[in-house]
Amino acid sequence: MATSRNYEFGRMSEASHPDSIRAAMAELVSTCLFVFVGEGSVLALNQIYKEPGSSASELVVIAVAHAFALFAAIAASAHVSGGHVNPAVTFGALLGGRISVLKALYYWVAQILGSVVAALLLRLVTNNMRPEGFSVSPGVGAFHSLLLEIALTFGLMYTVYATAIDPKRGAIGTVASLAIGLVVGANILAGGPFDGACMNPARAFGPALVGWRWNYHWIFWVGPLIGAALAAVLYEYIMVPIDPPPHQPLPAEDY
Amino acid sequence: MATSRNYEFGRMSEASHPDSIRAAMAELVSTCLFVFVGEGSVLALNQIYKEPGSSASELVVIAVAHAFALFAAIAASAHVSGGHVNPAVTFGALLGGRISVLKALYYWVAQILGSVVAALLLRLVTNNMRPEGFSVSPGVGAFHSLLLEIALTFGLMYTVYATAIDPKRGAIGTVASLAIGLVVGANILAGGPFDGACMNPARAFGPALVGWRWNYHWIFWVGPLIGAALAAVLYEYIMVPIDPPPHQPLPAEDY
Amino acid sequence: MATSRNYEFGRMSEASHPDSIRAAMAELVSTCLFVFVGEGSVLALNQIYKEPGSSASELVVIAVAHAFALFAAIAASAHVSGGHVNPAVTFGALLGGRISVLKALYYWVAQILGSVVAALLLRLVTNNMRPEGFSVSPGVGAFHSLLLEIALTFGLMYTVYATAIDPKRGAIGTVASLAIGLVVGANILAGGPFDGACMNPARAFGPALVGWRWNYHWIFWVGPLIGAALAAVLYEYIMVPIDPPPHQPLPAEDY
Amino acid sequence: MATSRNYEFGRMSEASHPDSIRAAMAELVSTCLFVFVGEGSVLALNQIYKEPGSSASELVVIAVAHAFALFAAIAASAHVSGGHVNPAVTFGALLGGRISVLKALYYWVAQILGSVVAALLLRLVTNNMRPEGFSVSPGVGAFHSLLLEIALTFGLMYTVYATAIDPKRGAIGTVASLAIGLVVGANILAGGPFDGACMNPARAFGPALVGWRWNYHWIFWVGPLIGAALAAVLYEYIMVPIDPPPHQPLPAEDY
Repeated sequence: MATSRNYEFGRMSEASHPDSIRAAMAELVSTCLFVFVGEGSVLALNQIYKEPGSSASELVVIAVAHAFALFAAIAASAHVSGGHVNPAVTFGALLGGRISVLKALYYWVAQILGSVVAALLLRLVTNNMRPEGFSVSPGVGAFHSLLLEIALTFGLMYTVYATAIDPKRGAIGTVASLAIGLVVGANILAGGPFDGACMNPARAFGPALVGWRWNYHWIFWVGPLIGAALAAVLYEYIMVPIDPPPHQPLPAEDY
Repeated sequence: MATSRNYEFGRMSEASHPDSIRAAMAELVSTCLFVFVGEGSVLALNQIYKEPGSSASELVVIAVAHAFALFAAIAASAHVSGGHVNPAVTFGALLGGRISVLKALYYWVAQILGSVVAALLLRLVTNNMRPEGFSVSPGVGAFHSLLLEIALTFGLMYTVYATAIDPKRGAIGTVASLAIGLVVGANILAGGPFDGACMNPARAFGPALVGWRWNYHWIFWVGPLIGAALAAVLYEYIMVPIDPPPHQPLPAEDY
Repeated sequence: MATSRNYEFGRMSEASHPDSIRAAMAELVSTCLFVFVGEGSVLALNQIYKEPGSSASELVVIAVAHAFALFAAIAASAHVSGGHVNPAVTFGALLGGRISVLKALYYWVAQILGSVVAALLLRLVTNNMRPEGFSVSPGVGAFHSLLLEIALTFGLMYTVYATAIDPKRGAIGTVASLAIGLVVGANILAGGPFDGACMNPARAFGPALVGWRWNYHWIFWVGPLIGAALAAVLYEYIMVPIDPPPHQPLPAEDY
Repeated sequence: MATSRNYEFGRMSEASHPDSIRAAMAELVSTCLFVFVGEGSVLALNQIYKEPGSSASELVVIAVAHAFALFAAIAASAHVSGGHVNPAVTFGALLGGRISVLKALYYWVAQILGSVVAALLLRLVTNNMRPEGFSVSPGVGAFHSLLLEIALTFGLMYTVYATAIDPKRGAIGTVASLAIGLVVGANILAGGPFDGACMNPARAFGPALVGWRWNYHWIFWVGPLIGAALAAVLYEYIMVPIDPPPHQPLPAEDY
């Protein structure tokens, strides 16, 4: 009856609705927390070492910092915003039809803002250390780094879809937050020495802006977005569908 | 009818009620366990190295020790006291109106006592090693350290509120204890090389008293209390409120 | 009435049924994710060091990468395929009568394919680094390596059976995925310096094929399959059975 | 009526009852798994280094191996035996009245046997490496080591009681297994450099027997048993009791 009008009101309501604002707020704070710790662990190694980033124990510091912080950031926002904390994840959820375009825009703005705030805060509390962000290691080319970001973010987004979005699972629970946090830690242990293993444009953007380092920055947008898109489309259209009950005779009225 | 009298009795009853005493007891033991392990991991590195605290793997030892011990300490007290294990967290819960002033006083005394007992026990079992507590690293100023403690404790308290206090979540479960423990570990990986990343006045006080080291000690009270207050107020007054159902016609009798 | 015909249709249906294909797909993607990260962490150390693999912190990198990635891979497939991600685990489940021969064949093909895809992807994104796979450390003989793989995989399969397959437990939950992931990490910390601690023929096969390294390769098939078989038979036939109610008088009609 | 006779039968039934045998079996396998990995991680460092055990990253290897393996061992036996995997924990549960003397005896035999089997297996798979077990570090006296074991095991047993035994909690779940495993890891990070941080007589006994090293061995029995006893008595008699409902008027018939 009044479906289209309701839909219109629905969109107006979605934009100004306290729950939408609260969800964006949760994304902002959680992304800020995650970027503060992630980039902070990189700066912490700069505080310890003259030439950081070239040993296995430094890799452990960075991977575990990202894993634990992302887990907490997702756990803290899952019940309000779904716990994306990553524009690539929001992009995947949008392609899979799991959130509206409007909500995705809200989330993107919030995630970018959260990252910039985190990088500014870091610059402040570390007495003006220049954030490092992401770059491509010597001997690794832009093309291979792009492929690596696609592959790593595919793994991340697949885990997000399978544990947090798949409607066959129940509500997003402990296992989802933890699996997403820890897969990011694992991916950093594998990909970190090549290009930092970003998988998250917001994680890259704030430190790039505040540290003003734009070399190869596009890789950390294009790679994650492609990787997340591939995983979302694969999962949504191949893994999710509910099967028609097999071998069930069609009801008589259909003939 | 007898509301005010009941309230008065209620307060008297709260002070002497076995459950209040038991909750304080749980805070005491859990804080003791946490400080014993946290400060103990610092002393363990003193046992291994002549000049500890300046490598990535030592940072991992301290961060993981705090993370795992805090998770266990919260898991062991969550069902009795809510698992604060931190005077700053209790302060945040008080500002958010989630516990009474009386209970907060109980918790604070218990947390401080637990920390002092832990530091004394450490001195005993390590054959009189002098606890280290927290200080500000060379090249880091008091002001920046204060800002860092505010920022790190904000992240901790926000996680506590979102996972353990928010009434939209169910009972405090695995995800809350784990997220709080691991965010502290992550924060130490980011903030440890600057000022130890305390976030907890009780964690600082016992070792400071038993090791008699009071330089910059105020930072580890003022910073965490401010950070927790900001997060609690933000979460309680912006994130918690239940929305009025949108677009619902007012009932006739209200006109 | 039509039981045997239904059974026949049942088998035909199982082979082409969307759920079987989806389960195999989940095994493929999850094994690919796991092998990509596991083998990737080995190559990451090759990127950092000239002569990797001989320090405690490198052991931590490899163990934690496998543990976190396997946890995520199981969490992402548990609700679709049961989260095997390992041909030896599938073999154990088959011996215990927990899946059909047909489904086991599907899983095996998917797991092997996933591993090969992961190794190829790694070769691509690392600009042609040659995967390492598994080998036996100098001073360790093939016989002892075989025994080690049997022992380690026994521990893994026992954990799988007790936490994920045992019908006395509920649905496969957080604790199962996490216990299985972390026991593999722990086993690598114990067995890694001897022969890599494989416990998973698919984890070994893809990198062996793509890196063309076949020395001792049989050990990483025979050992895990024997170890998983022993654990599955022990658990299924000794630990699972439901007891007859003790000391219950036999009903009169049985005399 | 026939209570005492039933009780007698009850005891006979308990001794031969399949569930008791299965519970002992679960303790045996889980303790074997735990000791194999724990002691195995020590031998793994012997395989890497000529003089192991004196760096922060080696401490991380040993702590994480014990934490992850104990978590898995408890998760794998919690639903069958309660997941003790430690004679000191069984002793605490006995003192708190939570298991019978007979069951405790079963558990102790199983745990000791499991540890001996693990140490023998380790000797076999490592081509006759001599297990190390526990000893007191140079500069640490027996008395301080004993106090340390008491303090560390108190923390462990308190966590066990609060998360797995306390009847106010529900069934032993993810949080209990994980908290117990991780608190042991945390305790090793704090106590490891002093005396290894054993907390478990079974963990010490098998390697001591197979490696034939008995120096200070008594400490790793006496310390854990005292620590567990103190925690169990504290928790059972102070934290557990159900309060009488406060201020409830006594029912008339009681006067």
